Amino acid sequence: MTVPGSTSPDPTPPSPVLFSPALSEPMLSGSTPQRITIIGLGLMGGSLAMGLRRAGVAAHIVGCGRAQLLLRALELGVIDSGTPDPCEAVAASDFVVLCTPVETSIALLRQIAPNLKDGALVSDVGSTKQAFAAASREIFGASAAWRVLPGHPLAGRELSGLENASAELFAGCLWVLTPLGDVEPAENAVENAAEYAAQTLTAAQQQWVAALQSIQAHVIFSTPQEHDRTLAYTSHLPQMLSTALALTLKQAFAASDPGLQIHAGGLRTMLRLAASDPAMWEQIAASNRHNIAAALESLETELRNLRLSLGGAGFRVQFEQAREFAKSLKG
Amino acid sequence: MTVPGSTSPDPTPPSPVLFSPALSEPMLSGSTPQRITIIGLGLMGGSLAMGLRRAGVAAHIVGCGRAQLLLRALELGVIDSGTPDPCEAVAASDFVVLCTPVETSIALLRQIAPNLKDGALVSDVGSTKQAFAAASREIFGASAAWRVLPGHPLAGRELSGLENASAELFAGCLWVLTPLGDVEPAENAVENAAEYAAQTLTAAQQQWVAALQSIQAHVIFSTPQEHDRTLAYTSHLPQMLSTALALTLKQAFAASDPGLQIHAGGLRTMLRLAASDPAMWEQIAASNRHNIAAALESLETELRNLRLSLGGAGFRVQFEQAREFAKSLKG
Repeated sequence: MTVPGSTSPDPTPPSPVLFSPALSEPMLSGSTPQRITIIGLGLMGGSLAMGLRRAGVAAHIVGCGRAQLLLRALELGVIDSGTPDPCEAVAASDFVVLCTPVETSIALLRQIAPNLKDGALVSDVGSTKQAFAAASREIFGASAAWRVLPGHPLAGRELSGLENASAELFAGCLWVLTPLGDVEPAENAVENAAEYAAQTLTAAQQQWVAALQSIQAHVIFSTPQEHDRTLAYTSHLPQMLSTALALTLKQAFAASDPGLQIHAGGLRTMLRLAASDPAMWEQIAASNRHNIAAALESLETELRNLRLSLGGAGFRVQFEQAREFAKSLKG
Repeated sequence: MTVPGSTSPDPTPPSPVLFSPALSEPMLSGSTPQRITIIGLGLMGGSLAMGLRRAGVAAHIVGCGRAQLLLRALELGVIDSGTPDPCEAVAASDFVVLCTPVETSIALLRQIAPNLKDGALVSDVGSTKQAFAAASREIFGASAAWRVLPGHPLAGRELSGLENASAELFAGCLWVLTPLGDVEPAENAVENAAEYAAQTLTAAQQQWVAALQSIQAHVIFSTPQEHDRTLAYTSHLPQMLSTALALTLKQAFAASDPGLQIHAGGLRTMLRLAASDPAMWEQIAASNRHNIAAALESLETELRNLRLSLGGAGFRVQFEQAREFAKSLKG
């Protein structure tokens, strides 16, 4: 799948580690700490740097971003050195993590590929995975399977920026990894993550898993396709809903309307996501358009059905089904 | 507006109190505590009884509901006596509060009207106000203006039942009152609640306002029409959205699908309201059908617009407008 003009892959792939009983414990404990480059120092990149720093995983963290952000990150002590040049930032690192919106990360991957150290592993934190996976295969060919391990931490997104970053952001949060090798995670990969990782990932990839576990992330595996379809419903749809609710209220009320004070906590709750970063969501929407459109169409149908049954017989049934589902998800 | 067969109104209306500088303090302090009947001992009625009890507002609280609930409420000490018969429950009370879903409260109002003590004030906690207001005027004619003071506390609704009741439920929450007199609250009644109350409410109505303030509710005034239109957008629409989201997910995933684990906090947040009581929402939907249908249609349009602009030029603009609105509401 290598295309003309793409960087040639490593000549010899590292052999996959077939058994790794230590995966449930951080794999880097006892081994030499690594040099990690984090490109993009916003909420995600900043929090990742803080978390890895606190966990003692990295001997040296290189930051890459705008000069002002680098200065702030150095001040905060979350990076050891920094440069606004991505190619320079990755040159000596064992791990490179792209912490920018999806399309930006794809452009950066293309840019840094020729400058990566032999054996370096690239990961990312993008909200969709198919586009990034396709770009990785285009750039690295078959070696994408061991040179890249795409990821997506499901952490709160309605805040942004380094000023909101925290070493705690990923504690207890799901971190989905979508390996690009031939062995796809089975449907039950959520439950058997450790086994899957031990049998199919390279040593470097397992080290990255361990690094994520050291910041208390709950690592699971999926395929880029399944990830994007699922997230369209469980993440992107709730976001679109919150945004559409805000637009509807904006249409119905002047911003200064005192009537808007007449609302319970439910409204603020439902509008929380609407404050998310438009630039990031523009890229998510573009990179997962078809799945999100299908989810939205399905939602529009449910809303229409509710509207047509207001005060009628089917209404109660729909409400009871929804309640049952919502409660089952909580359990 | 009295109709044939309706109960005849009181012969002489109490004169409205024209000035009440003490309204911001509980008006019952120093005066004889009152006898209050609470019909319906679920989350709302139970919490109201607990709050009034703790505030020392009532000399005697009569509960009305199913026998089992009455026993539990007596055990908890939140009522002093109880009966399952609404007519018996109201006979000797100064204040009667209907704490049942909207349509049930209307039926109860009709039933208890002939048994109310002279000068007794009826209020309610229903989520919509036009239907209850219309029924009050039908039952009491012109005297509805001083015999009834409809109300709606905007407290959390995703839990229900006496077991979830709390004396704290209404602390800091908005409690909208929609008086039925000739003087409608002006658009700025939210800001000038005390002044409005002092100039237009009867002494008993002001005592009820003070009782609500004693349980830390933030009392404001509106008209039944404005209340129902506003709530269609700020409360009923968020509820329908959460319910429709649950139905959409139910369609897309088997309940046991491990993929459903792949979601961030945003999904649980958006599904919180979907766990609300279907019986209550059936009555809200029936009693505010036209306003909710208009709000839903507007929302469906916004969702369709978002869907058609996914990855396109207008998407960013819509997201930025929504974000601005959501942030302005928070401020």
